[in-house]
Amino acid sequence: MSNKRPLILRAFDGESVERPPVWFMRQAGRYLPEYRAVRKGHTFLTMCHNPELATEVTLQPLRRYPLDAGIVFSDILLPLESMGSQLEYVPGTGPVIRNPVRTATDVAALKEFDPVRDLPATMETIRMCIEQADVPILGFAGAPFTMACYLIEGQGSRNWPQVKKLMMSEPALFGALLDRLADAVGDHLQAQVDAGAAAVQLFDTWAGALTPDDFRRWALPASRRALARVSGAPRLFFTKDSACFLPWLREIEADAYALDWRVDIDRAREILGDVPVQGNLDPQSLHAPHEEIRRRVHRVIEKAGPRGHIFNLGHGLTPDIPPEGVGAAIDAVRSWSWS
Amino acid sequence: MSNKRPLILRAFDGESVERPPVWFMRQAGRYLPEYRAVRKGHTFLTMCHNPELATEVTLQPLRRYPLDAGIVFSDILLPLESMGSQLEYVPGTGPVIRNPVRTATDVAALKEFDPVRDLPATMETIRMCIEQADVPILGFAGAPFTMACYLIEGQGSRNWPQVKKLMMSEPALFGALLDRLADAVGDHLQAQVDAGAAAVQLFDTWAGALTPDDFRRWALPASRRALARVSGAPRLFFTKDSACFLPWLREIEADAYALDWRVDIDRAREILGDVPVQGNLDPQSLHAPHEEIRRRVHRVIEKAGPRGHIFNLGHGLTPDIPPEGVGAAIDAVRSWSWS
Repeated sequence: MSNKRPLILRAFDGESVERPPVWFMRQAGRYLPEYRAVRKGHTFLTMCHNPELATEVTLQPLRRYPLDAGIVFSDILLPLESMGSQLEYVPGTGPVIRNPVRTATDVAALKEFDPVRDLPATMETIRMCIEQADVPILGFAGAPFTMACYLIEGQGSRNWPQVKKLMMSEPALFGALLDRLADAVGDHLQAQVDAGAAAVQLFDTWAGALTPDDFRRWALPASRRALARVSGAPRLFFTKDSACFLPWLREIEADAYALDWRVDIDRAREILGDVPVQGNLDPQSLHAPHEEIRRRVHRVIEKAGPRGHIFNLGHGLTPDIPPEGVGAAIDAVRSWSWS
Repeated sequence: MSNKRPLILRAFDGESVERPPVWFMRQAGRYLPEYRAVRKGHTFLTMCHNPELATEVTLQPLRRYPLDAGIVFSDILLPLESMGSQLEYVPGTGPVIRNPVRTATDVAALKEFDPVRDLPATMETIRMCIEQADVPILGFAGAPFTMACYLIEGQGSRNWPQVKKLMMSEPALFGALLDRLADAVGDHLQAQVDAGAAAVQLFDTWAGALTPDDFRRWALPASRRALARVSGAPRLFFTKDSACFLPWLREIEADAYALDWRVDIDRAREILGDVPVQGNLDPQSLHAPHEEIRRRVHRVIEKAGPRGHIFNLGHGLTPDIPPEGVGAAIDAVRSWSWS
């Protein structure tokens, strides 16, 4: 191992690097046959709450590929379970919360969340992975608005009608809920940093469903509140469909911003100013012939420029993506040289 | 009826108007109990191919609300049926094409599309609606890329993997398919204008799934090709998630651009320059208390400004939206006065 600091931390610091560091959202997941083999015997939630299993699947992509970081195997909705949600993963539907939160009574009934007490497996997984891996291990959490989406709607949705109904008809209650969630996920990120996470990412997956006005009023300040509780490691903020939010994104006060594939990374950097960015290959590019993958990877790197860029996808790996495509993309990143 | 030209045509011309004209995407649809009553006895496709039924449901929202335009009841996928697709509407799934197009042989086997010969019901519906309605009747078609999405994938998709695979691995074939579809939908729009449609809208619903590079390479020139075949009425272009495409959108050479709700309409107009725009209320706003609906409607109008604005939603009405919310939004538009 080099005596330099890990590449990903140097990129977060805005140093000039030979090539961007590379990791992939959902790199520990169903596209890998070795993941499916472990998953076969256990429910998804069992795996999240078992440090040995979670460590195994966190390390799987690091064994297969020369990645520059691992990300702890966990799920953004675990804190909701600790707060009282009856959470299930239903095949074909995804996460379902049997007791969604829609009234003041529901909000008041949410339990206090203490990440160290409530999610010891995640912290233990981070510690075990750090011991066994050669690269930094990242932590993560869902952003307050995205957590509120699942909590209120009770499951994933194209249009989030229940969420928007509550937001528009009971703004004070909606704001109080976002505050509760912001404090919870902020503490969750800090606990992961305390356990050794080298950086943390806040996923505001569904904030892109909002109008720019609603994003500025609700999702943005809630994420800022969450990140303000976290220190000691770089804090990344991700949202999909953020193209129209770029002029205000820096108000979140994250240390770096992860971009989806539907924005030109060079234009995004112009708008964001001098701050590291992560992204932003279209995940579906990994289905392409390897020469085309290489061309697309290099185009992202070239547009992003030599400083403050962490290579990643614009969204998570999906189960249908071929592991060979993932390997081809990583090879393409590693073959790049800025000198 | 006033001796002035219809409000919506004056707005398309960029005239100063007292208030914006208003119509809603999918205003003839399942949110209306009178639509569900008609629909009960017939399949969706039967209704599309029957001028009496299609006319009835086109006129339903015009009887209930003081809208400024009707839009012919039809479906973007009908031309694909004419071209050989085995199209079905499966409850819970939506449109399904049993014989998706994925090879050169499949593309070559597509039949020629002649809208007047193949879709006489749509043209007849337009003529019947014009006779019976007091407001202009609009026509529409799916944009070539969006049509290709359904044709290749075989059904709706979150990530369109088959579409992107073909696009990236067989660009010449993909381009040839887009050309075929562009000519078909262009002719379809022109036939609707010839039947009396006062304006036409091209729906590129899924173009927002593309990177900006892929949008510029594929979806944009295909839509320009389609619209170049149409004259005699204003031609609107709609896509979702277009925030990052705004700097290039004018290259489509449409007469007006319809925006989804995830963009500030004032910022969009700054980028687009002097061209009429349509939009862009979040459809989920129609679940809000009526005072909040009014506030949100007025905010859109105020941002859009007094010239060249057609009020609409940022996407179509969904079945769960309350008809009273739709009425409240229309009242709010009609109560606005720019003087």
